Amino acid sequence: MFEFWDKLTEEQKEQIKQSVHKETYEKGMLMHRCQENCKGLMTVLSGQLRAYILSDEGREVTLFRVRAGEVCVLSASCLMDTIAFDVMIEAMEETVVSVLPSVVLNQVMKKNPYVELYLYKAATEKFSDVMWTMQQILFQKIDKRVAGFLWDEMSHAGTQTLSLTHDEIAKYIGSAREVVTRVLKYLAENEVISLGRGKIHIEDKEKLKSFL
Amino acid sequence: MFEFWDKLTEEQKEQIKQSVHKETYEKGMLMHRCQENCKGLMTVLSGQLRAYILSDEGREVTLFRVRAGEVCVLSASCLMDTIAFDVMIEAMEETVVSVLPSVVLNQVMKKNPYVELYLYKAATEKFSDVMWTMQQILFQKIDKRVAGFLWDEMSHAGTQTLSLTHDEIAKYIGSAREVVTRVLKYLAENEVISLGRGKIHIEDKEKLKSFL
Repeated sequence: MFEFWDKLTEEQKEQIKQSVHKETYEKGMLMHRCQENCKGLMTVLSGQLRAYILSDEGREVTLFRVRAGEVCVLSASCLMDTIAFDVMIEAMEETVVSVLPSVVLNQVMKKNPYVELYLYKAATEKFSDVMWTMQQILFQKIDKRVAGFLWDEMSHAGTQTLSLTHDEIAKYIGSAREVVTRVLKYLAENEVISLGRGKIHIEDKEKLKSFL
Repeated sequence: MFEFWDKLTEEQKEQIKQSVHKETYEKGMLMHRCQENCKGLMTVLSGQLRAYILSDEGREVTLFRVRAGEVCVLSASCLMDTIAFDVMIEAMEETVVSVLPSVVLNQVMKKNPYVELYLYKAATEKFSDVMWTMQQILFQKIDKRVAGFLWDEMSHAGTQTLSLTHDEIAKYIGSAREVVTRVLKYLAENEVISLGRGKIHIEDKEKLKSFL
């Protein structure tokens, strides 16, 4: 279970066991919206989550994704008083999570520094993810970012045919749809990929790699 | 002293007391360069530090600043294994810091979860700062960002005459010098500020506020 498990008392273990439960979210559902709800520590069992920020004008920038087997700590951000920013967390596909509710987590962490340490360590890991994303957005050329995104998706999905719209890609990499469309057309003209309705097929992995 | 002070044993307190020392950095000196050096926990006594990232092409983006009385935790990033990114830290003016060396910090934190917790909490606070910076860069219009920067500088410095070049402002807010010059000229034409050599004078605080 959790890294801090061995540091818990029997009572704390029992308390956690009794409160942990599964929740299922449909694709596109928001499970965390700024400070409004603070579910607790979520472990993704299947599917994946996306954490993003939203501008006043509705522009989205994806910060990171949480995949099966990974823990989502920002859904417990209300318990961490040094976190002073708001993120949105949505299900990118049908996603099943195991939830350790904030109220129980809070009780346990007040008595046990190892639990609090676990939370802050996990948050700092996300800090690293966000720094990576920021450097991508600020410093990397857009063709490299699109190619890198397609490469990662292909590797994670284990298939060369990806179900993705241009708009979705733009949101994930923090760019505009028009820009993504232009890069995808360029990659298609160079026979790296072929484009279908809501689908992108990677024709030539080696060529794609050369763009990374 | 530190938040974790009361949680230390007498021996640990003594160990820290004997190792803490002052260091002085000249303006522009790098005190932390990626993973190359890992001084330890620094408390700024006077002056200020700037943490920034650097692109391959040499472009700088300021992440946050550390002012007198504040603690710089990323100069101990080697002790935090969930931090997987590199920052540069430089002195923005002559800066005196009190250093708790990494080697001592490491010994103490291995035995005391509260010390480790303190470090990760402080890192998460910087995570919040970086998220704010990122939202500024991604979502805010450039005139607002320049005006906001001047406002903050004026408030911190306690004077309406700021010694700053256009290039420095560009680095702090993560933009290009040409863009900053354009905005400053616009603000000067509107009698919000006046421009001198390496100096910016805020003529009208209320007008400046209206740009925020």
